[in-house]
Amino acid sequence: MSNATVTKQDCIENCQECRTTLNDMLTATCLAEGGDHVDPSHVKLMLDCAAACNACVDFMSRNSDFHSLYCRACAEICQACADSCLKIGGMETCVECCRRCHESCSAMAS
Amino acid sequence: MSNATVTKQDCIENCQECRTTLNDMLTATCLAEGGDHVDPSHVKLMLDCAAACNACVDFMSRNSDFHSLYCRACAEICQACADSCLKIGGMETCVECCRRCHESCSAMAS
Amino acid sequence: MSNATVTKQDCIENCQECRTTLNDMLTATCLAEGGDHVDPSHVKLMLDCAAACNACVDFMSRNSDFHSLYCRACAEICQACADSCLKIGGMETCVECCRRCHESCSAMAS
Amino acid sequence: MSNATVTKQDCIENCQECRTTLNDMLTATCLAEGGDHVDPSHVKLMLDCAAACNACVDFMSRNSDFHSLYCRACAEICQACADSCLKIGGMETCVECCRRCHESCSAMAS
Repeated sequence: MSNATVTKQDCIENCQECRTTLNDMLTATCLAEGGDHVDPSHVKLMLDCAAACNACVDFMSRNSDFHSLYCRACAEICQACADSCLKIGGMETCVECCRRCHESCSAMAS
Repeated sequence: MSNATVTKQDCIENCQECRTTLNDMLTATCLAEGGDHVDPSHVKLMLDCAAACNACVDFMSRNSDFHSLYCRACAEICQACADSCLKIGGMETCVECCRRCHESCSAMAS
Repeated sequence: MSNATVTKQDCIENCQECRTTLNDMLTATCLAEGGDHVDPSHVKLMLDCAAACNACVDFMSRNSDFHSLYCRACAEICQACADSCLKIGGMETCVECCRRCHESCSAMAS
Repeated sequence: MSNATVTKQDCIENCQECRTTLNDMLTATCLAEGGDHVDPSHVKLMLDCAAACNACVDFMSRNSDFHSLYCRACAEICQACADSCLKIGGMETCVECCRRCHESCSAMAS
């Protein structure tokens, strides 16, 4: 994805996908697997990232003048969550949607 | 859409579309138009409906045992919001997404 | 607390306290303790209950005509969360705030 | 309030009060009054500020490592909302809670 072509609609969709994927993976995979999957910092990142994506969708869809603050925060948290999911392993779906969301939020924040 | 074929993923997508469409229409159309578009009960319904859709996505994506409570509430509020948008006029996009969301939430709640 | 004297402001405050207490206990206690504290159904209830309280505050503070739907759902989920916290043990603070929130939401829903 | 003495709990309470006061004033006062009270940029700021306060409570109560991003954003939006409420007039309650929230969020963000 080239930043030049990221639209707000793309970013909203990436944030929506990331939020619901993380919510699903957290409850259906991480909690069920246990072990590293329920490491406090990993679970907190999953929760932070889902919340960050949600706030970002909210501000973008309300055509807020402040959406870039929430896109920038979301980009940072998505990166950290992608890293955590990669380290835990078995969470490729999360890694991918976090990276996609990081990219589009970075573009929307600039 | 036949209720028999509504999946949770369909319902999540309809709720997401409804939430972002209402947020966009409220801020970009209703507030700009004024008049009937900012009638207190209409604006409150737009806000209620966007919030109901958001809660519904949240409970469904977290695989919550309580999602049907939020789908049922969302179905009721979507119906009221569709009626209000139809009465105000010029809000066909909202009427359609509220009706679609009402249908899928009704199916998921049963 | 007699239902007759529960005001919306009381209920909002109980929901706010319940939401923030659960968020804090989940991240600072349950995830740190592990074991039964990260049992999937327990963690899901903690997340459901915090989200239910938040939606309830939102609808009540917006003077929504639909707030009783969210108070009723919140009352049900608070009861389930109080039971889960009692069973896990060492979560008296959560048990108490969930019960208080259950009572005031039940009163507001009726 | 001296920044040195602002605790997370103070900030959470100020954000909670600001969110519910804005939600109430928007629906019970601004929409009822009409005129300048439903000016698009004013209503959008009221919605942005309530959402910013809510996100801030969420990240602080989850003991998130990223709470300062949301406190900083909230501080900025509270300032803008206080200015808008002051300009519109008749919204002293909002001006006061936005300023209090701005101060505690600024302290928590630094």
